[in-house]
Amino acid sequence: MKRYKKEDPVSYALGITLTFEMLKYAPEHARRVYIHSAMQKGEAFDKLEALCKELKIPMEYGDKPFNILSQKENCFCIGEFEKFERPVDAGANHVVLHNPSNAGNMGTIMRSAAGFGITNLVIITPAVDHFDPKTVRASMGALFHLNISVFSSFEEYAAQYGNRSMYPFMLKAQKKLSELTVQEPYSLIFGNEATGLPDSFLNVGTSVIITHSHRIDSLNLPIAASIALYEATKKDF
Amino acid sequence: MKRYKKEDPVSYALGITLTFEMLKYAPEHARRVYIHSAMQKGEAFDKLEALCKELKIPMEYGDKPFNILSQKENCFCIGEFEKFERPVDAGANHVVLHNPSNAGNMGTIMRSAAGFGITNLVIITPAVDHFDPKTVRASMGALFHLNISVFSSFEEYAAQYGNRSMYPFMLKAQKKLSELTVQEPYSLIFGNEATGLPDSFLNVGTSVIITHSHRIDSLNLPIAASIALYEATKKDF
Repeated sequence: MKRYKKEDPVSYALGITLTFEMLKYAPEHARRVYIHSAMQKGEAFDKLEALCKELKIPMEYGDKPFNILSQKENCFCIGEFEKFERPVDAGANHVVLHNPSNAGNMGTIMRSAAGFGITNLVIITPAVDHFDPKTVRASMGALFHLNISVFSSFEEYAAQYGNRSMYPFMLKAQKKLSELTVQEPYSLIFGNEATGLPDSFLNVGTSVIITHSHRIDSLNLPIAASIALYEATKKDF
Repeated sequence: MKRYKKEDPVSYALGITLTFEMLKYAPEHARRVYIHSAMQKGEAFDKLEALCKELKIPMEYGDKPFNILSQKENCFCIGEFEKFERPVDAGANHVVLHNPSNAGNMGTIMRSAAGFGITNLVIITPAVDHFDPKTVRASMGALFHLNISVFSSFEEYAAQYGNRSMYPFMLKAQKKLSELTVQEPYSLIFGNEATGLPDSFLNVGTSVIITHSHRIDSLNLPIAASIALYEATKKDF
């Protein structure tokens, strides 16, 4: 066993909460569960053991994987899963991340997207690894609820899924989010943390801005994406 | 010079962007600016030098403070400032953080609050250090725009500033954020990352929930706070 790398065929759900999410929502991809010697026996452990037995997922005991895979001190359970592909649904609403660079941010956006019922995520590369254990952790397991498709350019995505409303979020946009009425199916499109979306997106669908004071340059990326998700879906909740 | 500690009378703005924010919005508290030998000379540096001269802030050259204070590789400028008190304004809207535990989250909330024009922040202890350089960094300098008051209990805060609408955000609340019309002046109140607000807050003002799907247990704290800030202030932007 080695440190996680992007090229690896498997990734890891660190902690018992994430391991349960993996077993419940991606059981067909779960490979094994590692248990640390300091893992507390009790109700949660019994449930975990029963679920692993039911799903025929082996449990392995030992502390070595934890030294290699986890920096957190209180992580006593790790779920290993095969990376999987679940293409996005053409009829559904999408979140599109264009060149996202931070694993924590990507995971936080996954959590908000699942929270607001948008379970289809498109990633335009270059992009941070969406299976990085840091992404999985920040998603709080929301990753296991999502369909995810990866494209090497926005054009490639649009050619395949273009028959929909496109809403690129940009500081140069004219339409305010608070005045937008979304037309389904739609794609909410967000740029890179440092550089945002290229100006070419001003010609894509209806560009949208979350207006704010001049005290800040911009909102943090997962904050902007989550506000957009909230506004677009609030009639449903 | 030693590693930053909560008890220190000074804290640090890491990086040139944050240092500019410190010099522009809290010049009376700025003490000195450290410059790394790898700092690029050019337009930004000239502006920094001119501003320090104008404000009579000494610039100190040397790499040692960077080894002690900064983990980031590309940080070549650090602003040192005295911790300051600026009590919140009784007539203004407030964000209240009850027992927040994560510096990055607190900074992200400061950034969103400043972004949506709420520049008065109340912190109920125990709480993470709002002057921690990690908080300053996550705030992207928004800290320097804020009035901040710290109380050791919510009751103490309410006794002094209670003549206002109180909106505690809780998963058990009945009023949906999307159906709320805020009455000014108000306080948007948020609990700890792991535990939320205690049930006693169900009796404080009007408790509010940001409704979402059952795919997630809760929204990330800065996400929830920022959505609330957006919704409460969107008529102003």
